[in-house]
Amino acid sequence: MGKRDIKVGVIGFGTVGSGTVKVLLNNAGVMAERLGFGLELAMVADKDTATDRGIDIGGRLVDDASKVIDNPDIDIVVELVGGTGIAKDFMLAAIRKGKHVVTANKALLAKHGDEIFREAEKHGVQVGYEASVAGGIPIIKVLREGLVANNFVSVYGIINGTANYILTKMTNEGGEFAGILKEAQDLGYAEADPTFDIEGIDAAHKLTIIASLAYGIPLSFDSVYTEGITRITPLDIELAGELGYRVKLLGITKMTGGEVELRVHPTMVPRDYMIAKVDGVFNAVHVQGDMVGDTLYYGRGAGDLPTASAVVADIAEIARGINAGSSTPAMKISANPPKLKSMMDVRSMYYFRFSAIDRPGVLSAISGIFGKHNISITSVIQKGRKAEAAVPLVMLTDVAREKDIRRAVSEIEALDVVDHKPFFMRVEGTGE
Amino acid sequence: MGKRDIKVGVIGFGTVGSGTVKVLLNNAGVMAERLGFGLELAMVADKDTATDRGIDIGGRLVDDASKVIDNPDIDIVVELVGGTGIAKDFMLAAIRKGKHVVTANKALLAKHGDEIFREAEKHGVQVGYEASVAGGIPIIKVLREGLVANNFVSVYGIINGTANYILTKMTNEGGEFAGILKEAQDLGYAEADPTFDIEGIDAAHKLTIIASLAYGIPLSFDSVYTEGITRITPLDIELAGELGYRVKLLGITKMTGGEVELRVHPTMVPRDYMIAKVDGVFNAVHVQGDMVGDTLYYGRGAGDLPTASAVVADIAEIARGINAGSSTPAMKISANPPKLKSMMDVRSMYYFRFSAIDRPGVLSAISGIFGKHNISITSVIQKGRKAEAAVPLVMLTDVAREKDIRRAVSEIEALDVVDHKPFFMRVEGTGE
Repeated sequence: MGKRDIKVGVIGFGTVGSGTVKVLLNNAGVMAERLGFGLELAMVADKDTATDRGIDIGGRLVDDASKVIDNPDIDIVVELVGGTGIAKDFMLAAIRKGKHVVTANKALLAKHGDEIFREAEKHGVQVGYEASVAGGIPIIKVLREGLVANNFVSVYGIINGTANYILTKMTNEGGEFAGILKEAQDLGYAEADPTFDIEGIDAAHKLTIIASLAYGIPLSFDSVYTEGITRITPLDIELAGELGYRVKLLGITKMTGGEVELRVHPTMVPRDYMIAKVDGVFNAVHVQGDMVGDTLYYGRGAGDLPTASAVVADIAEIARGINAGSSTPAMKISANPPKLKSMMDVRSMYYFRFSAIDRPGVLSAISGIFGKHNISITSVIQKGRKAEAAVPLVMLTDVAREKDIRRAVSEIEALDVVDHKPFFMRVEGTGE
Repeated sequence: MGKRDIKVGVIGFGTVGSGTVKVLLNNAGVMAERLGFGLELAMVADKDTATDRGIDIGGRLVDDASKVIDNPDIDIVVELVGGTGIAKDFMLAAIRKGKHVVTANKALLAKHGDEIFREAEKHGVQVGYEASVAGGIPIIKVLREGLVANNFVSVYGIINGTANYILTKMTNEGGEFAGILKEAQDLGYAEADPTFDIEGIDAAHKLTIIASLAYGIPLSFDSVYTEGITRITPLDIELAGELGYRVKLLGITKMTGGEVELRVHPTMVPRDYMIAKVDGVFNAVHVQGDMVGDTLYYGRGAGDLPTASAVVADIAEIARGINAGSSTPAMKISANPPKLKSMMDVRSMYYFRFSAIDRPGVLSAISGIFGKHNISITSVIQKGRKAEAAVPLVMLTDVAREKDIRRAVSEIEALDVVDHKPFFMRVEGTGE
C-alpha cells in the first residue's frame, strides 16, 4: 500500500524512556500487523551511555540529544527527559527541525504548552501527549475523540498515584500521614522530595491539560487552585468513613454558570461513587458529558510500561497520520474560550474540623458565625468530650460559597475558644 | 482551511435514531468548533413519519430508507434500524453507493460483520461501530488506538445492562430472579421478550466484536460459549457474598496457551476487583494489556443519548477522515489469526451447588468423583442440615478444566442421593 516504516528517536533513557524502548522493540510485530507498517527505533539519546538498562539496543544509544534531533531520517522525536528546562529546548529544537514530537512531560506542557503547540502548528508537526495525563489510561483520546459529541459537564480524577496510595493506606490500615509517606518512599511509590505529589502540584499539571482539552481554554496552570493532602489526619479519614465518604485527592474541572472551575484538593467523595472505589497507586478519571452521562477511565497512572503504552500509542497515531498524509491538531483553543471561575466563587459542601474548648456556648458561637455567612450546618460531631479542654469538633455544611466559608473561618479562628487553624475540606455529592 | 461540512443521513428514527438526531442538532456548535467544519443532518428515514418525536427536524423526515441511500449529497449513512434483516440490506446498499456507514447494530455485525467489512473495503468506505459495544463507552477506540501498543492478555466486561441490573438488585436487595426480571420489565430496563439480555446473547454479540478487534480474529459469534443468568438463585448470590465475591454476567475473551477464549456466563468475581463494583444498568470493560496492565472503562451501555454519543463520535471521526483525505481500516483480521479455544479446554475455578440428601457418605461420594477427575475442592458449605432430606451443598474448586468438570457433573448427577441438575458457575480470581 506504499506505507513506509516510521523512524523514532527517543531522548531520555530513564524509567519511561527505557519502557518506551521496550514496548517499541517487544511489540514491534503486533503493531506492524495492526498498522500495516513498522515503527522503527532509530536512536536513543541519554547523557549516561554506560549502561543499556538491560535492553539490547545495539549501537543505537548516543550521548547527545542533538544527534536525535538533527538526524534527518527520524520522523518522530520522543522527549522523555522530564522537567521544564532542557526538555523544552529539545522539544522546540525538534519541532523547528520539522519533527513530530511525543512527550509524557506534564509539567512542561502545563507551563509552556501554549508556546509549544503554537510552534508545532507553525511548523506543521504534531505533538502527542497522551502519556502526560494518567499514564496508560488513554484519557486524552477519550476527551478529544471518543466523547467529541459532548459538552463536558465535569471532569474529575485521581491523577496522582502517590497521593492515592497514601490516602488509601490511611483509610484501610489507619495511621498518620507522615509515617505512611515514609513507607511509600521506602517502597518507591513516593520520591525523596515528595512535594509535587503530596502538595497537588503534579495533579494540577495534569488538570491543566485536561481542562484545556475539555473546555478549549489556554493552558492555565497558574490559575489552578491547589491544595495538598498533608493536613489530613486519621480522624478526618475515620469521620469521613462514618459519614459515608472516602477522602481522595481530586483534580476537578467543571463548567458552572458559564465559567470553568480548576481545582486540586482533598475531597470527600460519597463511597458509592466509582471514583471512591479506586484504591492504591491507580488513577481514574470521571468524565461527565451532557450526552453520554457518567463515564470513568481507570488504570495505572505511572510506571515504565503503562506510561510507555501511552507514549507508543501517540507514536502509532502520528505515524498513521504521516502515512495517510493527514494530521489532527494538537490542542485546539476555542476562538472564544469560557472564563475561569475564581476559587472564591466556587460552591461546594464542606467538612470542618475545629479544635475547640468543650464549654457551653462554643457550639452556638461557631454556628452563629456560619449562619451569619449564609452557611447551613447539616451535621455536627463532637469527639471525646472533656470539660474545659480542647476537643475535636467536626461539622458538615450544605452547599456554600468558598468566599463565605473563608470569611466564616477567619472569624471562627479569632474566637479564643478555638485552638489551632481550623481545617476544612470540600465535599462532593448530591447536595447541589 | 478548505474543509467542507459533512452531510449525514440517518435511517431509523427510534430510540437511538432520535438520540443521534438530538446530539447532531443540539451539539452542532461545539462539534463544529472542535472539528473545524460542520456535521449536517441532511435526512432522516423511518417508516413512521407521523411524528417528529418532539424534535424539530423541519422537512427532513422521509418514509423510505432509499431516499437516504440514494441521496448523492449524503456522505455518511447511519443505520439505526436494528436487527439482522432489512438493516443488512440498507448497510450493504449504502456501502455499494460509496457511502461511509455508522451503526450501533451488534447483532448485525456479530453475524454478518465479515461480509460487511469486506464490502466496505472493496468500495473504499469506512464502517463506524463504536456504539455497537458498551453504548457510550469508547471501548472500540480504546482497543484499536489507545492501547495499540499492547498485546491483550484479556478483555472482560459487563456488557449487558439489563442482566447487571437484575444481578445488582438480587445482590443488594435480595429476591428471586423472576420477580426482579418482572420489575425490570415494568421499569423499562428489560424488554417484553428479555431472551437476548438474560440468556447472554446480546453480550455474546458484543464480545464477538471485542474479540475480533483485540485478537485480529474473524467475527465468531457462533463460537462464543453462551450461558445466561436465569438459574442464579438468591442462595448463590448470598454464598458468593459470604465467600468474598459478586456474581456478574461477564463476556470474557482471553489469550491462553496461544488460543483465544470466547465465553459469556455468570461469573463469581472477587469483590475487590473494579468490575465487581459496577452496579445497576452500567457497563464496564476491563482490558488487561501486556504493557499497560489493568485498565477499566465504565459508563452507560444503552439509552438514547449515551449510545448516540458513540454514534456521533464515529460520524465525527469519519468526517475528519473525509476532510483529511485519509481513512482508518474498519476492522483488521490478522493474516495469521490465533485459533479459538474449545470451551472444554478452558480452565477456571468453579462454584457448585447441589441439592443432595443429607446422609452420611454423600459428601465423600461427591468428593471422590471430583478427585477422580483431578478437581480439587477448596471449600464446602452445607446450608440447613436436615437428616435424610435434600439440602443445598455448595463447593468451590481450585482451577480445573471444563471438560473434567463436565464429566464429574455427569457422574454426580447420576448419584441417586443428588436431586435436580447440579448448578455450576465459573469463578474468576487468583487461583491460576
